[in-house]
Parts: sequence; C-alpha cells; structure tokens
Amino acid sequence: MSRYPITASNRVRRMPKRGHYDRDTVHAIIDEAMVCHVAFAPGGVPTVIPTLHARLGDALLLHGSRASRLMKHLGEGHPVSVAITLVDGIVLARSVFHSSMNYRSVVIHGRATPIEDDAGKLTALEAFAEQVARGRWADARKPTRKELKATSVVSIPIESAAAKVRSGPPMDDDEDYDLPIWAGVLPLTLRAGTPIPDPRLGRGLTTPAYVRRYKRRVRADAS
Amino acid sequence: MSRYPITASNRVRRMPKRGHYDRDTVHAIIDEAMVCHVAFAPGGVPTVIPTLHARLGDALLLHGSRASRLMKHLGEGHPVSVAITLVDGIVLARSVFHSSMNYRSVVIHGRATPIEDDAGKLTALEAFAEQVARGRWADARKPTRKELKATSVVSIPIESAAAKVRSGPPMDDDEDYDLPIWAGVLPLTLRAGTPIPDPRLGRGLTTPAYVRRYKRRVRADAS
Repeated sequence: MSRYPITASNRVRRMPKRGHYDRDTVHAIIDEAMVCHVAFAPGGVPTVIPTLHARLGDALLLHGSRASRLMKHLGEGHPVSVAITLVDGIVLARSVFHSSMNYRSVVIHGRATPIEDDAGKLTALEAFAEQVARGRWADARKPTRKELKATSVVSIPIESAAAKVRSGPPMDDDEDYDLPIWAGVLPLTLRAGTPIPDPRLGRGLTTPAYVRRYKRRVRADAS
Repeated sequence: MSRYPITASNRVRRMPKRGHYDRDTVHAIIDEAMVCHVAFAPGGVPTVIPTLHARLGDALLLHGSRASRLMKHLGEGHPVSVAITLVDGIVLARSVFHSSMNYRSVVIHGRATPIEDDAGKLTALEAFAEQVARGRWADARKPTRKELKATSVVSIPIESAAAKVRSGPPMDDDEDYDLPIWAGVLPLTLRAGTPIPDPRLGRGLTTPAYVRRYKRRVRADAS
C-alpha cells in the first residue's frame, strides 16, 4: 500500500486512530467529492471558498476565471490548504457528548503551480468535466482557445495529505449502554434526482445514460 | 428584509449577481447544512478543517475538544473564515465552459469569542444536537459538568456574511443552443437512508420518529 509521508503538517492530531495516509483512501475521497473548500490567507487573514476540483494522478487541480482573486493568489505560489469532506451519516449516541458524524475527509497543504499551456489546460478541463459527470466530456462542446485563455488552472501536489475517517456505530460510555435511549446511525447519501431538461432543449435530444443513471462513486481507474 | 452590511470583506466579487446579503437567505443555508469548513491561519499559513456548526440568532457556534488546536486558536480571537456549502445540482451546459453547479453557499469572516460559562455552553450544545437531528436533545443523555469542561465552544458573529446562490438552467452562448447536445440540470440532494440501530441497542427500544422521518430542512423558527 502506497502512503503519503506523515509530517508535522499532515499528521492527524485529534483522534489519531481516525487518520489514514495511504493513497487509495485519499484518492477515493477526492474522486467521490463534488466540491472542495480552499483556504488561503492573503496578508495572513484566512478566507475559505467552495469550488470544484479534479485529480490527475498525485495532483489536485483547481480552476477559475483568470480574473479571480483566488486564482491569482494561488498562481503566485502562496501556501494553500484544501479540505474535501463526504458526510456519510449521523451517529446518534446515547449521550450528547459521544454523538458524532460518520464522514470521510481529506486535508491537503501545499503550494500551487499554474498550468499555463493550452494542452495542459485542456487535459485539466477534461478532468473537471469528468469529475462532475463521467462521460460528459465526449458529448459537450469543447473549450475554444479564447475560453482556455479566460480560464486559470493550478495544480497542487497531494504530497502532504491526510484522510480522516469515522465509520460504524456510536461508542458510548460503558455505564450509558443501559439507558433507555435509542442509539444508532442514520446514513446520509448525496443522491441524484430526476434530470431537468433545459427549457430551450433542441427537439429529439434524449437524456444521456450517464445523466439518467448518475451515481457518485470511486473511479474505476483510481490510482 | 433585514440585510447584513456589504463591506470590502463580504462583497461577492466574482459573479456579483449571485450575491445575497439578507438574513433569511444566509440563515436558511446555515441551518440546512450538516457541516461547515473553518479556515484559520496560525503564523499566516492557512489551514481548513471540516466541523459541525450551529446557529443561535446572529451567531455561528463551533465546538470541539478543549485540547484542539483549532479551538485554542479561535478562542484567542484570531481572524477566522467559515464556509457553508449546499450542493443542489449539476448544471450541464452544451459547452464545457458554461457547465457549472447549482449551489447555495455562505462565507463568514470574523473573530470568535469563547463561551465559558456552563449555562451558555449547555445552550450551545443543545443547538448543536438540534442542528444535526431535530428532536434529539430531549431524548439524549445531557452533558455532565465534566463533559462541559472538556468541550470548548466559540461564537462568531454572522455580521460579515454573504451568500452566493446559483439556481436554474444552464446559460449557454447564443450560438451553442442549436448544437445537438443534451443540456439541463441534474438535481442532487443529501438523503437519509434506513436507520441502522446500534448492535448493542437495548431490547424494546424503537426508532424515534425524528430519525425514521428525518429530513434536512430550514428550521421553522429560523429568524
């Protein structure tokens, strides 16, 4: 099993037994998530922003408008932190104190490098499209050179990453197990509903299978 | 409609028409979310961590172990940023460039104040329990004085908050509407599954209605 090195910046301090540093666990969480949260600190003042992400091998990709404050800041190589979180369930312990969530999360620390060439950007944009809806890239109208120019892409190495995972039933204090209180886990899942065709959809266009049968899942080729 | 003041620190710069500053919109997003992402920057280096939150009026509450690095840092009054994000759907435009997500997010900037007294902490812990599963506080074993002592709670004013919302169909370039590409929105919702009783559940304890009929929703008393 291939692992990321455990250092001062990625070691899980709170609840260390929930920490995971192997690539498979980290990559699977990144690949399943729909959104990430990016923290940056211009002038030392922290800001956090939700955005889409994609993964190419051992790199996390972020993109945005060339004019965006986040993209400019990241492109300059300042330190950045990214969190990716999947909520799996509510853990209802008998005591409020031991009540918790089941979740899988990854936190990455690093510095970004801009991807400037058109070929690299195009590969990245394919990864973003496929991260959101696998199969979409083949169907959609690809970016023009002008659109590529208007888009900034940065790459952050996933070297300093740690996953934190809680799963399973509540863990109550021994003396609380006899209390007449229901305890257990309520699973939560991000589910797709019925696709809503664009009101301006052309006649005769049917909903593609990757939309009709949409599921979030670990990529089959995750590596 | 009551609004938060628009200042340099909360003004939505990218896509300003997606910005919302009214209390109702901001509070509804905070109340529906299961988790928030907290950014802090000890020594100017940003870190982001997922955690639970609760709201009491115009204050966002965070809690954690007294030993946690985050809680110590926040309790000292350093600047903090919190993002709360709800993913509502995948926006499949004809072009990759205009493909997007439907989402509702809130970003808050501020400084935290610790809540130190037992009564204030207890009220906060009730808000956390109810944020996760409405109705749970009445059933669960309440925190002891020792548990209260082991828990840190901080309060962040929601003054400098902005919501950002995208909803509705894709917006393609005029010349792309004739392309033979399916376009539309795939709705996404966080759904509860079947409750899993604790393997050590006492005999005769039935699953409470607030677990069986669980739904994420805006609080009826949101204000």
